[in-house]
Amino acid sequence: MVEITLVGIGTGNPEHVTLEGRRAIAEAELILIPRKAAKDDLAHLRERIVADAGSRARIVHFDYPTRDQSLPYQQRVRAWHDEIAERWCEAIGDAPTVTLLVWGDPGLYDSTLRIAQRLPGARARVIPGITALQALTAAHAIPFNTVNGPVTVTTGRRLRDSGWPEGAETVVVMLDGECSFQALPGDLHIWWGAYLGMAEQIIDRGPLAEATYRIVSARAAARERHGWIMDTYLLRQPD
Amino acid sequence: MVEITLVGIGTGNPEHVTLEGRRAIAEAELILIPRKAAKDDLAHLRERIVADAGSRARIVHFDYPTRDQSLPYQQRVRAWHDEIAERWCEAIGDAPTVTLLVWGDPGLYDSTLRIAQRLPGARARVIPGITALQALTAAHAIPFNTVNGPVTVTTGRRLRDSGWPEGAETVVVMLDGECSFQALPGDLHIWWGAYLGMAEQIIDRGPLAEATYRIVSARAAARERHGWIMDTYLLRQPD
Ligand SMILES: C[S@@+](CC[C@H](N)C(=O)[O-])C[C@H]1O[C@@H](n2cnc3c(N)ncnc32)[C@H](O)[C@@H]1O
Ligand SMILES: C[S@@+](CC[C@H](N)C(=O)[O-])C[C@H]1O[C@@H](n2cnc3c(N)ncnc32)[C@H](O)[C@@H]1O
Repeated sequence: MVEITLVGIGTGNPEHVTLEGRRAIAEAELILIPRKAAKDDLAHLRERIVADAGSRARIVHFDYPTRDQSLPYQQRVRAWHDEIAERWCEAIGDAPTVTLLVWGDPGLYDSTLRIAQRLPGARARVIPGITALQALTAAHAIPFNTVNGPVTVTTGRRLRDSGWPEGAETVVVMLDGECSFQALPGDLHIWWGAYLGMAEQIIDRGPLAEATYRIVSARAAARERHGWIMDTYLLRQPD
Repeated sequence: MVEITLVGIGTGNPEHVTLEGRRAIAEAELILIPRKAAKDDLAHLRERIVADAGSRARIVHFDYPTRDQSLPYQQRVRAWHDEIAERWCEAIGDAPTVTLLVWGDPGLYDSTLRIAQRLPGARARVIPGITALQALTAAHAIPFNTVNGPVTVTTGRRLRDSGWPEGAETVVVMLDGECSFQALPGDLHIWWGAYLGMAEQIIDRGPLAEATYRIVSARAAARERHGWIMDTYLLRQPD
């Protein structure tokens, strides 16, 4: 029986951490931190947040396993989650509590909660965090929704496969490595942002007809320069 | 020319405030706080957050005008926003900066940003906050989305008027005073929460066929007891 606390840490700005999150980190006994190649700029963010919180937790690093590319997608993801859960088990040993720092909010397009559920007898406690969606609308100082209007949250893959969602007014897109807005009507308005909340933050906006080329170029250049990129965007029907 | 800082303060737990938000409040010169009748439990939350941040800002209270019920909905809302903007102008005078504490995140179903845009020469700065959506999924320790799946964020009124959104897998509903899930198919699963993040928090979950009656009763009783209620829920298609 282990209590797993997942703390949402926001999207790269160490000040996105909430007072509740900082308290949980300060009081943690054992913290698991992934060791990730590439993304060097991010590698030290979790360490920094842990240090800033004044935590004296024992820190255990773990490596992510590699994914078995021979398996079909869903099965591959499941096998990968199983393997991560095993590594956590080893790292946790018989500690009664363990804490993980999760990018953004633990509920939004993140697998940490699904992995936690695989640990026998585990109980998950979730501390909400600032998501890339809030970081995006804050950076542009725009509302998420129109007055009383709905918003569809989706992924780049879905947008490519299924196009503009039936009847949608506002669509926000995450996990898009391919600028999937390129195939959409040029009169849609886009608000785009990369590295939101970080020193590297870039944002752009405009009707797709004008903004697409600028964003595709800026994204490629930034990705080249930093070696990685994370971006999110909001699309809205013209009035 | 005034800079208006909107700080998202989360959904009632003073520890939802982020470090960035707390810093903005600590550094504020002038803070506007609405005086609201009813909702007594909430009246002091903003004052408490301002005090906890160690702010020495000048605090000015303002009253919300009453809405002109003789006007049609959209026009009534616009007239009301105009009037609030005027009251802010008076309160601000010629101060160069002003700060407002906004419930949840300033982008999500909130009019503060639209009111700020009415002030001549104003520039808005937004500090993201924990939304009721994150507070809901955290309270239940559930993911917001299915793996790679989309989510529709909508209001109770929309759900009543338009029913289950075409092709949706997960729907989250805010601003619903009428338990609008009652008309939906009983095999949908609901995760419901009221007073999320607060001492009064109540949550419930289950297939609608079983949970609807429990939630409708619990909601009515809680509303009676506290004199007000705020609730949000997530609905998901069964696998
Ligand atoms: C695996 S998901 C995790 C989302 C995270 N849990 C959240 O709440 O934002 C990663 C995606 O989030 C978005 N994202 C995360 N951080 C971002 C940032 N700082 N700037 C722009 N997009 C970001 C990107 O769309 C990226 O592909
Ligand atoms: C005017 S909207 C403001 C939303 C806010 N800006 C946010 O980011 O959550 C108010 C609605 O948010 C939801 N809400 C806000 N706080 C809540 C809480 N503590 N518990 C449950 N629902 C809440 C309810 O659906 C309520 O009708």
